Amino acid sequence: MLIGPGDDAAVLAAPDGRVVATTDLLVEGRHFRLEWMSGYDVGRRAAAQNLADVAAMGAVPTALVVGLACPASSPVAWVEELTDGLRDECAVVGASVVGGDVVSADAVTVAVTALGDLQGRAPVRRSGARPGDRVWVVGALGGSAAGLALLRHGDRQLSARYPRLLDAYRCPVPPYVAGPFLADAGATAMIDVSDGLVQDLGHLAAASGVAISLDLSQWAAPPDLVEAAADLGIDVGEWRLFGGEDHALVATVPAAVDLSGDALLIGEVAAGLGVRYDSGVRYDSGVRNDSAPGRDHLGFDHFR
Amino acid sequence: MLIGPGDDAAVLAAPDGRVVATTDLLVEGRHFRLEWMSGYDVGRRAAAQNLADVAAMGAVPTALVVGLACPASSPVAWVEELTDGLRDECAVVGASVVGGDVVSADAVTVAVTALGDLQGRAPVRRSGARPGDRVWVVGALGGSAAGLALLRHGDRQLSARYPRLLDAYRCPVPPYVAGPFLADAGATAMIDVSDGLVQDLGHLAAASGVAISLDLSQWAAPPDLVEAAADLGIDVGEWRLFGGEDHALVATVPAAVDLSGDALLIGEVAAGLGVRYDSGVRYDSGVRNDSAPGRDHLGFDHFR
Repeated sequence: MLIGPGDDAAVLAAPDGRVVATTDLLVEGRHFRLEWMSGYDVGRRAAAQNLADVAAMGAVPTALVVGLACPASSPVAWVEELTDGLRDECAVVGASVVGGDVVSADAVTVAVTALGDLQGRAPVRRSGARPGDRVWVVGALGGSAAGLALLRHGDRQLSARYPRLLDAYRCPVPPYVAGPFLADAGATAMIDVSDGLVQDLGHLAAASGVAISLDLSQWAAPPDLVEAAADLGIDVGEWRLFGGEDHALVATVPAAVDLSGDALLIGEVAAGLGVRYDSGVRYDSGVRNDSAPGRDHLGFDHFR
Repeated sequence: MLIGPGDDAAVLAAPDGRVVATTDLLVEGRHFRLEWMSGYDVGRRAAAQNLADVAAMGAVPTALVVGLACPASSPVAWVEELTDGLRDECAVVGASVVGGDVVSADAVTVAVTALGDLQGRAPVRRSGARPGDRVWVVGALGGSAAGLALLRHGDRQLSARYPRLLDAYRCPVPPYVAGPFLADAGATAMIDVSDGLVQDLGHLAAASGVAISLDLSQWAAPPDLVEAAADLGIDVGEWRLFGGEDHALVATVPAAVDLSGDALLIGEVAAGLGVRYDSGVRYDSGVRNDSAPGRDHLGFDHFR
């Protein structure tokens, strides 16, 4: 940061000569509930989902600018928690909040823009996957959806048995360093899993003009995820395939590259279109277009 | 733009090796009213106020990323008008909308982040004004406040006599090129007038640790501004000194530099603190802390 908060605008170093930029809005009642998440959690999550988008290009996040709309009656402590959460999530990647705007409104809305530096790398787009590539994932799948399902279910005694899943919902832990790592490993395409593995790989497959076959069967789901699914009568495969907001990074990589030990092999790229999956439990092959729980997007196409 | 909408993030050229970034939120009912402004107007204004912040650093705006929260029932035409307005205001400076996020919410909120390139210039901060500098302004003062006052007054026949003032409110016309021009002319400090001339110069004076004496008396207010003020029984000096959202650029420049013909000389910098002004009509000297009409900020300090 060359000039931080307090002027008309911030000034950041962009040593690469290019800058990566992405933005997301979080709206109270749509993307978070004040009774389920502290201001700190909202701050960490708002930062995390934008920083993960930067990482998914193969870049290192450098800075956030943040717009906050909230009622004038909002407790100062809540706003301070939010800024603490933003700051702490930035610190995970060595970034910082360099500017912002706070205005009053009836509902809380957090608008985060993240910037990043490619450090000389070619950006990894969604459109570069080629038949023969293999599909690797780094990071968690399904934990956030499980945490949200527990909170929606509303049984506090039950929820209390799954603190890791509640944390996964409130405060995702994207594998930021995997973004530059996968880029350096030769990733041909990459995306962060914000809307669910099948849906986001569907975006990647469509952009690349390829078909992707998914197979999670060789990777056991974490025991608490399996148990929570059983308790709620939900297929654990649904959370892993369709649950969003864990912000795992998934990339297609040429078959000659073996990332075993650093990433999980979950699929293959072939000629064709769409995403095929078989959770081994109850889904037929095919593309399902569900939105991830908690996300509520509309009209993406206006800006994309 | 190297990579535009449609991926996890956009990638922009930053040839200078630094990037300027600023963000603002506009909230329905606080910063605009849907019955007073079209989607197109909201888009142009949302872009303009952020692009002006970039210019006020001495930089050239390059790109916007935009977050839009709006009811699912919002007419598609309104959203398209908004994006048209954003695009057209960007085109004024050769910038473009490179990415965004659209989500549903009860009220319309537009979150704009603008990025810019310094083209090798030193950024012009608020803190560099020195005693002996002179204060120059480029751009309109008071027109937006007058337009808002006419709309609030609610007399349509009266308003119809002042189309330029209504336009000034709905769609400000910041003098973007004056930002780099004033920087190249040796500006020691600069700010864009978003909250009102006295208030924004107060920020500049405080950041620089100087006193500023303002004198608008040698510059006649535009005739329609004078007439509208008389019609509404308002002191025209109030609009020029305290009216925000015209996004004029005001800079302090060493006394040896004469900008006559390119800018208006409106004051001097001296040792001391604060802003002194005399509209020649009814104000005593002193700093007044009114917010500009239409703006509704709180808690700036959390991010500044």
